[in-house]
Amino acid sequence: MKEKAKKINEIMDEAGICDMRYGVKGMYIWLPYGMEIRNRIDSMIRGEMKRTNHGEVNFPLLIPENYFKREEEHIKGFSSQVYWVTHGGDKKLKRRLLLRPTSETAMYPSFALWIRTHKDLPLKTFQIVNTYRYETKQTRPLIRVREIHFFESHTAHDTFEDSEAQVREDMGIMERLGKKLCLPYLLNKRPEWDKFAGAYYSLGADAYTPEGRTLQIGTIHNYRDNFARAYNIKYKDEEGEEHYAHQTTYGMSDRLLGAVILTHSDSTGLVLPPEIAPIKGVVIPIIFKGKEKKVMDFAEKLHEELNGKGFVMDDREMTPGSKYYEWEKKGVPIRIEVGPRDVDENSVVMVLRDTKEKIKVKVEDMSSRIDEELDAMSERLYKKAEELLKSRIVRIESLDKRKASRKIVRFSWCGSEECGHTIEDALDMSLLGTGSERENGRCVVCHKECDTIAYGAKTY
Amino acid sequence: MKEKAKKINEIMDEAGICDMRYGVKGMYIWLPYGMEIRNRIDSMIRGEMKRTNHGEVNFPLLIPENYFKREEEHIKGFSSQVYWVTHGGDKKLKRRLLLRPTSETAMYPSFALWIRTHKDLPLKTFQIVNTYRYETKQTRPLIRVREIHFFESHTAHDTFEDSEAQVREDMGIMERLGKKLCLPYLLNKRPEWDKFAGAYYSLGADAYTPEGRTLQIGTIHNYRDNFARAYNIKYKDEEGEEHYAHQTTYGMSDRLLGAVILTHSDSTGLVLPPEIAPIKGVVIPIIFKGKEKKVMDFAEKLHEELNGKGFVMDDREMTPGSKYYEWEKKGVPIRIEVGPRDVDENSVVMVLRDTKEKIKVKVEDMSSRIDEELDAMSERLYKKAEELLKSRIVRIESLDKRKASRKIVRFSWCGSEECGHTIEDALDMSLLGTGSERENGRCVVCHKECDTIAYGAKTY
Repeated sequence: MKEKAKKINEIMDEAGICDMRYGVKGMYIWLPYGMEIRNRIDSMIRGEMKRTNHGEVNFPLLIPENYFKREEEHIKGFSSQVYWVTHGGDKKLKRRLLLRPTSETAMYPSFALWIRTHKDLPLKTFQIVNTYRYETKQTRPLIRVREIHFFESHTAHDTFEDSEAQVREDMGIMERLGKKLCLPYLLNKRPEWDKFAGAYYSLGADAYTPEGRTLQIGTIHNYRDNFARAYNIKYKDEEGEEHYAHQTTYGMSDRLLGAVILTHSDSTGLVLPPEIAPIKGVVIPIIFKGKEKKVMDFAEKLHEELNGKGFVMDDREMTPGSKYYEWEKKGVPIRIEVGPRDVDENSVVMVLRDTKEKIKVKVEDMSSRIDEELDAMSERLYKKAEELLKSRIVRIESLDKRKASRKIVRFSWCGSEECGHTIEDALDMSLLGTGSERENGRCVVCHKECDTIAYGAKTY
Repeated sequence: MKEKAKKINEIMDEAGICDMRYGVKGMYIWLPYGMEIRNRIDSMIRGEMKRTNHGEVNFPLLIPENYFKREEEHIKGFSSQVYWVTHGGDKKLKRRLLLRPTSETAMYPSFALWIRTHKDLPLKTFQIVNTYRYETKQTRPLIRVREIHFFESHTAHDTFEDSEAQVREDMGIMERLGKKLCLPYLLNKRPEWDKFAGAYYSLGADAYTPEGRTLQIGTIHNYRDNFARAYNIKYKDEEGEEHYAHQTTYGMSDRLLGAVILTHSDSTGLVLPPEIAPIKGVVIPIIFKGKEKKVMDFAEKLHEELNGKGFVMDDREMTPGSKYYEWEKKGVPIRIEVGPRDVDENSVVMVLRDTKEKIKVKVEDMSSRIDEELDAMSERLYKKAEELLKSRIVRIESLDKRKASRKIVRFSWCGSEECGHTIEDALDMSLLGTGSERENGRCVVCHKECDTIAYGAKTY
């Protein structure tokens, strides 16, 4: 029987990712190990942004009320969720300020200043900041929080076609990040009623977790010129004629780490994809009385060799077993055990975090074997998650709630909002949206002929 | 005659560091080039923190009112400056939340949970976050802002002696950072009336800028057990007896970059210390009709060789002169010019940003020469600033305002608050505090014998 996975709070607590005892609901304290993981994910994203020529910017946290109130749909979408700053010291502010829930309304007045002619386009920017949403739903660390560690790219283009090319670039970035984080996902075009406030359309990257739900880990939006009209972002073309710019955004958050934890953890605790593991491995000398020096010297030599690969040495005075457990709970990919016999044989025992497989390796092969095993572990974690995801997708021809439980349902949908809501109500699920594939069939509700495939699941 | 230095706003604008047209006073938009510099400074600080075994943490921005209101001196110091969040959406919050002006009050309730016994000490943490202060004084980019990009380390120790050792470690870090940023400074123990709210004592690192003022670029505080008593941070010693912990903090902000700009810029614009220059150099091919291909091929080969050193190639269709000016305004340390004659001679012309010196270098020597010149530039910038700082320190024996103008005054001070304020009023300056040196003399006001040397200057 499969052992029960630990709860996310327990895993985070035992690994030292967050302290969840802060005095504001939905806000958490990031601990050093958690910060090292988070910084690694940020670096990964920065690397992708640099590769694709996005410039990093940083806009203020506080947004003046009049900046915010210029795009109607956007206000509707966010105004119930914003934190308002009303006082500075004892003084009531003349103009209320809000904490950014996302940065469109902070940034686009500047876009209107920066963009003059077609030569200023495309404008590709991003920032990594914390955003704030006064969530009314139940909060949960990494998954639904009120202080969100947020990546947001904002771009502007001369044509809709160019903005579509940007969406494709973003999709490519999402795919590369998914691979590195060992997170497969479905990319769904959200239904009209669930798109981002102000967007022309929204794509959501939906990972599937063993809890039987999908988790949105990234969103890509094409705004067309909706925001440009509201914020007066215009450019002159070569003939000097004015046009509104076309805009896109791409957003991700700490949910990436949330999905990693929910997807890969086991009954012991955290399992980290090697790419984001702050510590790739730990060397543990197993001391027997009288053999201490021999083993310690050997272990120290190994550690010296592996230091540059992100390995640490654990020579604390504790039983090996409790050390093993501690490092396993931190999700460290590889453990190197060294006992007296290993010294004699000039070898080590390598233990893999995900499979717990033990491998005897000659010291001369150790370094290259580590590289191989880390790569193999990444691939294995991705494959395992991909198999789970695929195995949970079921094609349905009727609205059978039992068949849908803990599954991702796949069905033909005519695209009408009425049928969409009928599906959501009947299955007690969210309609994630439509995939890019086309298949002839009949809408699962109204039986109209259509070629659109939609997905539904319980979400977070 | 010395050319007039540009204003900081103009330099920042022309270099592309910040856009200063945001809709909230004292808050600025960081542009890509500015962010690259800022990220480099952050990395430098993270490196120092890692070297000295501080763990990075991240506490929430929003602090509950009751957390804040536990240390009386601290409240007095900050309550007129905090931004208050009072509403979530349309709902009035039951408990007001404040934006951190600094993080003592957010962190120390957790310290009380984390610290149980002497084994938990020392606890060494830091975070890099934005802090918010509703400044009533005139705001100025990088110097006095309402959204502060802030580094703060917070430590806890079992004894006062150990907290003093921490202060010395922080002083060492400040010195290393000062060297890298080419910023000499005086370290002054602030007078009682100017120490940090809640501190036992405060040290300020005061850089001197050519504007004739000192700028506080770092502060190190020993809190003794003042905060520990307010936040109940206690540990059990080996005998099981309870004691309050001793705490220190160390803070720095974007003022580091402010000091760099004010100190090193010239009449052309920004001069960046090589260590934080996002672009170390630029290769500029100088094209003459008919020689294009020869020069371009040569320049491309050079750029390939120098790419890993942080050099870029500028082959835009513009006059060389306008390119030079643009890169100079960005403070890029080295320019490599390549014309047809250089190709024939297998050499380049290297131009140094600070001295504008032109050096002819053989291609085979180029790479090592670049390393040498960058190091020499760092040293030169530091030395120049140090000479300026030293030349502006004047020993005074009486309160002569004219003699003190644009200077750092140095004088004997008995230490009394009354004499201190008399000096401040008479010279229209701030008393920066006392240096570590001892010299026998008589207080410049009351003529009492004393061996304390104090410094005064106009500050920002």
